[in-house]
Amino acid sequence: MATIFTRIIQGDIPSYKIAETDTHFAFLDINPIAEGHTLVVPKEETDYLFDLSDENLSETIILSKKIAHAIDKALNPLRTGVIVEGLEVPHAHIHLVPIYREDQNVSLRNKVDVSKEKMEVLAKSIADEVRL
Amino acid sequence: MATIFTRIIQGDIPSYKIAETDTHFAFLDINPIAEGHTLVVPKEETDYLFDLSDENLSETIILSKKIAHAIDKALNPLRTGVIVEGLEVPHAHIHLVPIYREDQNVSLRNKVDVSKEKMEVLAKSIADEVRL
Repeated sequence: MATIFTRIIQGDIPSYKIAETDTHFAFLDINPIAEGHTLVVPKEETDYLFDLSDENLSETIILSKKIAHAIDKALNPLRTGVIVEGLEVPHAHIHLVPIYREDQNVSLRNKVDVSKEKMEVLAKSIADEVRL
Repeated sequence: MATIFTRIIQGDIPSYKIAETDTHFAFLDINPIAEGHTLVVPKEETDYLFDLSDENLSETIILSKKIAHAIDKALNPLRTGVIVEGLEVPHAHIHLVPIYREDQNVSLRNKVDVSKEKMEVLAKSIADEVRL
């Protein structure tokens, strides 16, 4: 059965899309830990990030760099951090997390509330800055 | 002035070394959040990970994959996660964090105590499994 990320990539589940390439898809995390928290997902259904081929892994991190730069330009955090845990969804993904304050506790357990309207504004403002 | 990581790479400050290539250096984090918590550092002194060239960034993540596989083999966690924040030391680095339990709160704020003797054992056991 397709993972939830594959269903998002295929459009069966709606998402706040940021960018798409032949091999990857990026969209806002629906349970964000910061405004602009974005997931970068290889379309290939590999569970563990470090089981991706060197080539796909490189493409994943280079796209993450481009999206991070778009987040930085759109939202002006101190910088954009990275988290990979990967125990919840068996489909490799990178969390890009804007860090707005020195004392921000960057953890996937620290969710923030972001309204649907704000998510739409965030997605558009980041997507507009992506240069693939 | 050289960053603390450059001084470690140059051997001016001792470290629990895991692996070294022409361009990168990996060693145990001296303030670990899990046993086997490892830093992967490009030798180039770039502050922000996403300011590295695509080539260097790819080398960084591919070396991280090799080290993560060594951690997985040596210590048998559920898997090895990733954190990048980068606000403390102005020299890009990737935290590789073994995740031993589903409920492990992966955060750089959750330090664990590991004795000097144990750090030596961990470093050797991981280093022995690295295949560059």
